[in-house]
Amino acid sequence: MKVLVVGANGKIGRILVNKLQNEKEFQVRAMVRSEEQANALKERGVDAVVTDLEGTVEHIGNAMDGCDAVVFTAGSGSKTGPDKTLTVDLDGAVKTIEAAEAKGVKRFVMVSALQANNREKWSMKIKHYYVAKHYADRILMDSDLDYTIVKPGALLDEPGSGNIQIGESLERGSVPREDVASTIVEVLRNPKTVRRSFDLVSGDVSISEAIANL
Amino acid sequence: MKVLVVGANGKIGRILVNKLQNEKEFQVRAMVRSEEQANALKERGVDAVVTDLEGTVEHIGNAMDGCDAVVFTAGSGSKTGPDKTLTVDLDGAVKTIEAAEAKGVKRFVMVSALQANNREKWSMKIKHYYVAKHYADRILMDSDLDYTIVKPGALLDEPGSGNIQIGESLERGSVPREDVASTIVEVLRNPKTVRRSFDLVSGDVSISEAIANL
Repeated sequence: MKVLVVGANGKIGRILVNKLQNEKEFQVRAMVRSEEQANALKERGVDAVVTDLEGTVEHIGNAMDGCDAVVFTAGSGSKTGPDKTLTVDLDGAVKTIEAAEAKGVKRFVMVSALQANNREKWSMKIKHYYVAKHYADRILMDSDLDYTIVKPGALLDEPGSGNIQIGESLERGSVPREDVASTIVEVLRNPKTVRRSFDLVSGDVSISEAIANL
Repeated sequence: MKVLVVGANGKIGRILVNKLQNEKEFQVRAMVRSEEQANALKERGVDAVVTDLEGTVEHIGNAMDGCDAVVFTAGSGSKTGPDKTLTVDLDGAVKTIEAAEAKGVKRFVMVSALQANNREKWSMKIKHYYVAKHYADRILMDSDLDYTIVKPGALLDEPGSGNIQIGESLERGSVPREDVASTIVEVLRNPKTVRRSFDLVSGDVSISEAIANL
C-alpha cells in the first residue's frame, strides 16, 4: 500500500512518514509545501512531492498518482491566523478529499480533533479550529471514500507509550503525537476501520488491540 | 408568510425587514444579537427576537416558532477577525439550517456571495470569507430544505435601481443592497426559485421579470 501523507512536514506527519518508511507493507510519499522540505526528505530516501494546499483540486490530485491511500494531517498551525484555518484546514482538506475522489484513491484517513463532531464540547479559545475540522469531517463522511477519522486530544511531543483509549465520545485528554502516528499506521492496516471515526487519548490498551476492538 | 430575518440589524437585513413589514402578504420577525437592537425594532412595531448565532441549534430554533421561512443575511463583517467568519458566517449559518430542519421550516433563503460555488473566482484578499460561504451553501444544498441561494456581487449602499442581472455564473459586478433586499422579497414570492441558486449584479431587467425568467 502506497500512502500519500499530506502535511508530511508537520509534527505528526514527520513521525508518520518515518514509521511508514520503516514498515515493509507500506510505501510512503510525503506531500510538503516547499522544495526545501522535499529535498530534505529526498536526501533521506523518501519519495516527496511539493504541493500547495491552497492550489487547485487538480494540482493536489497530481500528488496522488500511484497512491492507494491518503492521510490528511496538514494544518495551518497557530502561527498563522484563522484565515489560513479556513483556507488550509477546511478548504485544503476538502480539496484533498475531492482530489482523492477524482483520482479514485478510496482510502482516506483524516486527522481531526477530539469531539470535533460535538459542538457543545468545543474549546471557546480555538472554536474556529473546531469549526474547520467539523466541516471537513462532515464532507468526508458525505463522500464515497473509505474514510477513517482519527480525533486525538491535546497533542504532546513526548515519546509514545503505545497504549491508547479510543471511543465515540471521550472526555478531554492528551496523547503523544507518536501514538497518533502509530494509530494511523494500525488504521491503515485494518479495513475494519473503514467508515469509522473515533476520539483518541492516552490509555492502557495497546494500539493494535484498541483498533482490533473498535 | 411569516419570515424570520437572521441578521436583521445588518445592512441588507434592515432594508429587508422594512420591505417585508410594508408588504401585506408578509409578516416579519427580526432576529438580532442585542436587546438594544430588538427594542429599537419593537418601538417601530417590528416583531424582534434576541438570538446569538454562536449559541446552540435549539437556541436558534426558538426564534423560528411560528415562521414559514428563514432568510439568512447575517455576517460577522470585516470589523471582527476570520475566527468569527468561521463561527458566525459558517457555523452560525449551518446551525440556522439545522434549526430550520428541526423546526420543519422548509423555506430558506441564503444570502451568499457571487461565485461562492467556484473556487477559481475567489478574491485572494477575502478568500477565507468565500470558503465560509461556500461550505454553508454546500450544506444547505445537501439539506432537504426548500432553499434559494442568492449570490450578490460587491454590495453598494446607494439606492436600488430595481433592475438586475442574474445567472448561474456571472462576471464580477456590484449591486445596491436595496436591490438585493428586493430580490429576496421576489424570491420569497416565487416558488419557482426553490432549490435554485444564482449570481446577482446590477442589470437592465426588472427584478420581478428576472426572477420570473430564472
